[in-house]
Amino acid sequence: MEQSSFANKRVLITGGLGFIGSNLARRLLDLGASVTLVDSLVPEYGGNLFNIAGFENRVRVNISDVRDQHSMRYLVQGHDCLFNLAGQTSHLDSMQDPYNDLEINCRSQLSILEACRNYNKDIKVVFASTRQIYGKPDYVPVDENHLLRPVDVNGINKMAGEWYHILYNNVYRIRACALRLTNTIGPRMRIKDARQTFLGIWIRLLLEGKAFEVWGGEQLRDFTYVDDAVDAFLMAAASENANGQVFNLGCERVINLKDLADLMVEINGSGRYELRSFPPDRKRIDIGDYYADFSRIRSVLGWEPRVPLREALVRTVAFYRENLEHYL
Amino acid sequence: MEQSSFANKRVLITGGLGFIGSNLARRLLDLGASVTLVDSLVPEYGGNLFNIAGFENRVRVNISDVRDQHSMRYLVQGHDCLFNLAGQTSHLDSMQDPYNDLEINCRSQLSILEACRNYNKDIKVVFASTRQIYGKPDYVPVDENHLLRPVDVNGINKMAGEWYHILYNNVYRIRACALRLTNTIGPRMRIKDARQTFLGIWIRLLLEGKAFEVWGGEQLRDFTYVDDAVDAFLMAAASENANGQVFNLGCERVINLKDLADLMVEINGSGRYELRSFPPDRKRIDIGDYYADFSRIRSVLGWEPRVPLREALVRTVAFYRENLEHYL
Repeated sequence: MEQSSFANKRVLITGGLGFIGSNLARRLLDLGASVTLVDSLVPEYGGNLFNIAGFENRVRVNISDVRDQHSMRYLVQGHDCLFNLAGQTSHLDSMQDPYNDLEINCRSQLSILEACRNYNKDIKVVFASTRQIYGKPDYVPVDENHLLRPVDVNGINKMAGEWYHILYNNVYRIRACALRLTNTIGPRMRIKDARQTFLGIWIRLLLEGKAFEVWGGEQLRDFTYVDDAVDAFLMAAASENANGQVFNLGCERVINLKDLADLMVEINGSGRYELRSFPPDRKRIDIGDYYADFSRIRSVLGWEPRVPLREALVRTVAFYRENLEHYL
Repeated sequence: MEQSSFANKRVLITGGLGFIGSNLARRLLDLGASVTLVDSLVPEYGGNLFNIAGFENRVRVNISDVRDQHSMRYLVQGHDCLFNLAGQTSHLDSMQDPYNDLEINCRSQLSILEACRNYNKDIKVVFASTRQIYGKPDYVPVDENHLLRPVDVNGINKMAGEWYHILYNNVYRIRACALRLTNTIGPRMRIKDARQTFLGIWIRLLLEGKAFEVWGGEQLRDFTYVDDAVDAFLMAAASENANGQVFNLGCERVINLKDLADLMVEINGSGRYELRSFPPDRKRIDIGDYYADFSRIRSVLGWEPRVPLREALVRTVAFYRENLEHYL
């Protein structure tokens, strides 16, 4: 990817005050882009004004919700690129309020794409999809040819949302592609609770000197450092070869949750956790081992993760030790 | 399947005044079931009061729309079995009004299942899914391990609707399964236009002595006679082995559209058609050859198609020759 691809480009990011959105915004500013962030700041989601501390004067912030068709219709206009990251991410919340998840992850995606089709056909869209849509893997590493068998409402709605993007690319030539993210970690993620990632609540409790809970412990997982995820979004946006495609992200080092917990304690210098069996309401939607085969994005876009897991965790813990109060 | 499975059973059919729903209702009455039909009678869809002519006094008809959460919440109660057939079926309509398709094929499925979960956990649900969710096949015959890559909004929403059923089976133990229907043909289908099946408009024009259009002509398709589809719904409802499963329907004889057109003309004794290349708005969502591998339902439920294609077409044409006025 040419660094110059984004110079003077007008970029819109939904979920722009969230974890990945804000990290992406910062990078885009460094690349010379003009950046507008759309975020609803719904308290249960990932948006946090502190995420843009230090560069708040260099971005335009527009508070609105992707469910608001009217504002989205206006906002997609005049932009070269849309990073479409707004979403409801909590699996449990999606089971407790499936309609809300549907409105955000399914219907709003359709209305965003309709807005692009009607008011900005030349925009390029990169959608933040999720490994959650695969459900419980038949095999690992999971490649993009694996069947989609989501195990929660969130997974079903994200699956539909992803496919609206592919469809609008194929039928209407609204250039779009999707990244199926695995566990993304790093500065600016939500750590108040487990709504965005279980690692968030681990870090919070670790830094507060409290025991965190590890459910199960043997499950294998993969992690992408947020800077690497940002790379992938930029590469997907810059390449015409990405259009109409879905790509897994992943990492080199797979780890089980108990070893990850030990690593967290070691990096923090202290801490403790409790191994617990799965609570019944989680067990039903647990997926066992998951890690991705990311060879497609490596071969098509040249993406590779660059930050090793340990380094990712060191940077992440350091960020929250410094900024804990802004994330509670 | 025991014929006695449905004696005195209380059965609810959404889309019950439609093509498959009304044929299913008639069979269930013969098996001794107590049958309630729910239908919105939206003029563009498949519902037609003439479909129950001759047995209208033996069924309960409740006019309401599956989008009406309030009526569905009441209606699912007190039933042993729900055949969930209501849907928007037009691919073109789904592209022109994607929100409407989403409301019916996606959101309403969720609310029906929520109604079951909250008010009738013991109900068994059989959902009418569609081959459309596969999109353009990588290989034929298409089995249930083929990736889902829908090529229109209808396909995406039906995919989500199907998966809500599987999810509610797996997580909440609301027993549910889905049949992925291919082209179903027979008496009581909509023939006013191509909204339900292209074969409908062919038959109408044939019987009106007008030329019908064959787009392409080389595409291979498979067809299920409606009585065979009804068998599959009953077998799926009666078997606990079906729970949580998806099943393709199919047939023994695959045929290309031009040969099918010739066969239609021959069976009708006269008629003509024009071979045309695809209109651009259809070409983009065409799927090429499709026919199903239905070995899963054969091995799990013992289903097999019994009515050969020619016989299916003979019966169908005879029905519409007799009853044409009621379907225009």
